[in-house]
Amino acid sequence: MAYDAIETPFGKVDKILGGAATYIGLSASRFSLDCAIVSVVGEDFEEEHLSLLRDRGVDLSGVEIVKGGATFFWSGKYHNDLNTRTTLDTQLNVLENFNPKIPDHLKTPDIVMLGNLSPDVQLKALDQLESKPKLIVLDTMNFWMEHFRPALDKVITKVDVISINDEEARQLTGEYSLVKAAGEIQKMGPKYVIIKKGEHGALLFHDKEIFCAPALPLEEVFDPTGAGDSFAGGFTGYLTETGNISFNNMKLAIIYGSAMASFTVEKFGTEKLVNYTPSMMMARLRAFKELTTFEIEIE
Amino acid sequence: MAYDAIETPFGKVDKILGGAATYIGLSASRFSLDCAIVSVVGEDFEEEHLSLLRDRGVDLSGVEIVKGGATFFWSGKYHNDLNTRTTLDTQLNVLENFNPKIPDHLKTPDIVMLGNLSPDVQLKALDQLESKPKLIVLDTMNFWMEHFRPALDKVITKVDVISINDEEARQLTGEYSLVKAAGEIQKMGPKYVIIKKGEHGALLFHDKEIFCAPALPLEEVFDPTGAGDSFAGGFTGYLTETGNISFNNMKLAIIYGSAMASFTVEKFGTEKLVNYTPSMMMARLRAFKELTTFEIEIE
Repeated sequence: MAYDAIETPFGKVDKILGGAATYIGLSASRFSLDCAIVSVVGEDFEEEHLSLLRDRGVDLSGVEIVKGGATFFWSGKYHNDLNTRTTLDTQLNVLENFNPKIPDHLKTPDIVMLGNLSPDVQLKALDQLESKPKLIVLDTMNFWMEHFRPALDKVITKVDVISINDEEARQLTGEYSLVKAAGEIQKMGPKYVIIKKGEHGALLFHDKEIFCAPALPLEEVFDPTGAGDSFAGGFTGYLTETGNISFNNMKLAIIYGSAMASFTVEKFGTEKLVNYTPSMMMARLRAFKELTTFEIEIE
Repeated sequence: MAYDAIETPFGKVDKILGGAATYIGLSASRFSLDCAIVSVVGEDFEEEHLSLLRDRGVDLSGVEIVKGGATFFWSGKYHNDLNTRTTLDTQLNVLENFNPKIPDHLKTPDIVMLGNLSPDVQLKALDQLESKPKLIVLDTMNFWMEHFRPALDKVITKVDVISINDEEARQLTGEYSLVKAAGEIQKMGPKYVIIKKGEHGALLFHDKEIFCAPALPLEEVFDPTGAGDSFAGGFTGYLTETGNISFNNMKLAIIYGSAMASFTVEKFGTEKLVNYTPSMMMARLRAFKELTTFEIEIE
């Protein structure tokens, strides 16, 4: 959970609610399910932001509030193409010594979504679980691959699904072909590999099966921050609500996740993710269907 | 029509058959249709390469053979990611003074595919037609946008479909959003806009409709040369064979074109495009269908 200062070609905000757990929690809470966040914030974390999550049914009993501490802060500037960004400032603050503590009533989750964070912290969280979850999903990034590879490798052996971008899949395996990269990653542990390609959509690999979801072509992308996390929260949220972790249902989870990411990028921060209506979601699912449907005769 | 010397991370060839018209003609000839190439070669152009095309039913009466001239030659080296390449040598040779001459019996075509070449040459070809084709498809690239913009703008007003890559669509319009870029291009003339995204597939825009075709994720990409031209030949070939230029049929034409491009990149030059079997094509169409199909309930 974080505060972000973001500059895009379309505007600037000084301090808005952000962080992987926030986006994941807000996305997941759009489904009918019980969900909880395990994270850490500083004493500066606004009551209105705790309420925003709590009011949507997110259990915050696993969110530690450090007295006298400051919440993680990130500041970045997106360039004109919105595909590249420069980090202007990173203040770890209370995240530096974060030691996740999972409350007893949260120790037997169905689905665990490990947000992008130090693999050591991710391991500490997994170690506290009292039963094997139906599904563990891991999000990570190049930084952890470069500097924390042994710990990351250990996390990877323990998860069912990994979600990374195309460059990271190549970096993790040394394979340029994404088919080969996904094959190598499956050998490391995760039976399902999601490769996120931003405006080009996402691929889901499982055994010999591949599913390709487009991203919705949008007139305006306003602020890409949180797109991947909204996707992850939508993906796990849909799987939790439906209680079905088959490959076919994961396809739909990816479509829901992509739809949620498409809402997030249309406004700064979490604004649209929180405010879209069910009929807006239906229209977006319909757009995904129209975008990809073709009827071909195959002999 | 050209000779290419190509180096990829997987091998090297000194002088193989290449050129936009060659790939387009060979793709189109895989369908049941009459097709012809209007182009120019030098006296060095091998009889076996003329036969390769002629044996597949490609009418070469519009191909001028310049006595004492040399065929266009291109030499390039692909980098490790295969997405970027360096041109090592370009010898225009007979292409420098190419003045296309369309034989009388070819002056009333159903569908015209303008391969990537100087817009002045493209205009000279269009000016010789004696009836309005059902469909004119234009392929072009950044080079012509940068140095021949007025002539290119003139061609663009005369075509029904334009096929360019995502960066070129942005360059042509100054719009970063591909939805907006496609909208601007439609205002210039072409009612259909195809945006090619290489390994990320292709988008087809028409009015408010959008279709998104993935590229087939491949284990091995051997040589990307000719992928876009194979796509163009497959697209126009399928439309010609079926005689149906509706948006829905164009979707299938894009899938066929993508399948043909996926064959081309698996071997050097035209080898696989010429040698794939109908059952290999069926398997590939099935793979496209499996890759994109999902069943979602929309209220």
